[in-house]
Amino acid sequence: MNETLVNIMKKINIGLFGFGVVGEGIYKVLSEKSQLNTEIKKIVIKHPEKKRNAPAQLFTTDAKEILDDPEIDIVVELIDDAEAAFEIAKTAMNSGKSVVSANKKMIAEHASELIELQRKNKVSFLYEAAVCGSIPIIRNLEEYYDNDLLNYVKGIVNGSTNYILTKMKSENQSYDDALFSAQKNGFAESDPTLDVEGIDAANKLSIIILHAFGRLISHEEILRKGITSLKTEDFQYATEKGLVIKLIASCQLDDKNKLIPTVLPTFIEKSKTLALVNNEFNGVLIGSALADEQFLYGKGAGRFPTSSAVLSDISALRYSYKYELRKGIQNGFQSNYSSLQRIYLGFDPKENIDQNLFENIEESYQSNHHAYVTGSINLEKLKSSGWLENKAISIIAF
Amino acid sequence: MNETLVNIMKKINIGLFGFGVVGEGIYKVLSEKSQLNTEIKKIVIKHPEKKRNAPAQLFTTDAKEILDDPEIDIVVELIDDAEAAFEIAKTAMNSGKSVVSANKKMIAEHASELIELQRKNKVSFLYEAAVCGSIPIIRNLEEYYDNDLLNYVKGIVNGSTNYILTKMKSENQSYDDALFSAQKNGFAESDPTLDVEGIDAANKLSIIILHAFGRLISHEEILRKGITSLKTEDFQYATEKGLVIKLIASCQLDDKNKLIPTVLPTFIEKSKTLALVNNEFNGVLIGSALADEQFLYGKGAGRFPTSSAVLSDISALRYSYKYELRKGIQNGFQSNYSSLQRIYLGFDPKENIDQNLFENIEESYQSNHHAYVTGSINLEKLKSSGWLENKAISIIAF
Repeated sequence: MNETLVNIMKKINIGLFGFGVVGEGIYKVLSEKSQLNTEIKKIVIKHPEKKRNAPAQLFTTDAKEILDDPEIDIVVELIDDAEAAFEIAKTAMNSGKSVVSANKKMIAEHASELIELQRKNKVSFLYEAAVCGSIPIIRNLEEYYDNDLLNYVKGIVNGSTNYILTKMKSENQSYDDALFSAQKNGFAESDPTLDVEGIDAANKLSIIILHAFGRLISHEEILRKGITSLKTEDFQYATEKGLVIKLIASCQLDDKNKLIPTVLPTFIEKSKTLALVNNEFNGVLIGSALADEQFLYGKGAGRFPTSSAVLSDISALRYSYKYELRKGIQNGFQSNYSSLQRIYLGFDPKENIDQNLFENIEESYQSNHHAYVTGSINLEKLKSSGWLENKAISIIAF
Repeated sequence: MNETLVNIMKKINIGLFGFGVVGEGIYKVLSEKSQLNTEIKKIVIKHPEKKRNAPAQLFTTDAKEILDDPEIDIVVELIDDAEAAFEIAKTAMNSGKSVVSANKKMIAEHASELIELQRKNKVSFLYEAAVCGSIPIIRNLEEYYDNDLLNYVKGIVNGSTNYILTKMKSENQSYDDALFSAQKNGFAESDPTLDVEGIDAANKLSIIILHAFGRLISHEEILRKGITSLKTEDFQYATEKGLVIKLIASCQLDDKNKLIPTVLPTFIEKSKTLALVNNEFNGVLIGSALADEQFLYGKGAGRFPTSSAVLSDISALRYSYKYELRKGIQNGFQSNYSSLQRIYLGFDPKENIDQNLFENIEESYQSNHHAYVTGSINLEKLKSSGWLENKAISIIAF
């Protein structure tokens, strides 16, 4: 039996928006692999004067050349601007085209409209590359953990901050030096706000929550603190206790079946799985009733990992794959911050800290230039304490 | 928008063969989760006299009550005997039923017939539970790494041997004591041969190779050594060098695009990902051109992880999912053992070892009761050396 089971596949025409490193990578793979039977027919770019590594006749600055072309089946959207990306996705779906995107901001902010557009037009909208780059987290949450009761999904979902935290730990760098090194090596944007404030992680978490727990939640609802307040003293504390600091996006069900979604710097024991996720890598733990704990690890961003995820989505569209969102959309679990969380609060001794917000205090330390308190706090109180927004205060969850 | 995108799903009737811990677990989940619209209609068992936690009218000893029932859509086969399992799978597929199985021995030994049966009858044959229990390795190789050029797949795919090796290392136990402890705790069979000789790992590797590299290869073709020869002195050597010993199933493409499939005890640096896979856990590294290295980790066997994987397969069948084997079947990469491998060879000094088989020797040690040699050897020479079959000789790859 020499025959293979390869399906008869329809030829697919792609319209590409954006021709940065990812776009170029995808163009290259698709033009080299004719067996995929998939061709890029048009590429919309902003700057026609730039020299490109593809035939000139492929390029245009007019979005209509893709959106109005009935021969184009799939729109692959790889531009930065979230609002412009949403307009493209919307018009494409309303024209009966399926869409592949890597824009987590656009997806998280417009999830409900995008789901409705997908349903109404009977097209697919796929975005594996938007969460943890090459790690197939969405696909696995959709397909594989479908029948299992998930208890938690938590992990390192932002490569820039993980790179910075790794440098701060291993090379004792200050936050500013580590950020500069990340920018120099292409692991952080020139405006790193979305990353370092944890907003990017919160956007990804909201996409994860949709697929894991069937609930649409905006990143603004998520209790969040980024990494900009972390000081070398905080890393010293961690090292003394055999811990490392990671920015963890976490969503777990509490004992009342309420969701607790957080993005917080978190102490991880050195020997634990997440402590091994260093530099620009991402890693996600999935805890469930049947499968117990599983771990998915890989490169979270960058040219090739993102290209890999986008190509997988394109490939899935040849078989008309779509996310079924079987856990529902709005009828999922409510979120709730009434539970207690052990935290470390680091601050300048001159700062006036209302320690009465703590349910109990375990440790309290003060020197001339640094002070900290550890103890348990109600998450609702933490959310309204003002500490999350205060750049002079570092908060690290245990 | 409160509506969900849940597809209209057909009601599915299941016929179950075997009612051990996994069968019972699946029965329990399906009877509790009515939203799955999936019901177990009949269960074939061998011993009707046993007390079962399910209504008596579900049970029968007559396989025909499932195989001849046109209302049964899916056969879930969970029996031990590989040949009987194959007969069930064959008859079921020839009757137009899809089949879910966890029997890696049956799958590896009859892969080509099973693929043909699937094709001929236009049914699905799924077996995620057969490789690494709850870790969705087959599904990801099939779906997600479809467009990416895989360079290697390697990992710990057998929970019993990993449990034994963990005990031998952490508690300094002898092989016999560790095996006894594994058996006592339900992590090894009373006849552990398939596990400890690496045959189970080789069967799983052959299934992985089919989905990763598009080649059918029998476990007998795979260069293989189990863990029965490992002695405390080998573990001492590992500890002194900061290494741990793991049974690694590995398949990589060499620079001539030939496959090198091996199952060998292997030294892993303590800080490396695979060194963290302990006890009954499994972990698999996937290396590819675009996505770089990814890692999937979870429980490899046991009641709940296996149930989880079987349920995912059942769930996928509601959407008529099938493995497409897009990498082909026979036209894939050839295997080749012409490359050099660094190994450690441990032996009794009284043993007559032909060290000329080594290409070069790095270390050579001898005491009254133990000797070892490290160096590079051509894998073809290792395969024909007789050392792999010799229980007095331990071989550990670097």
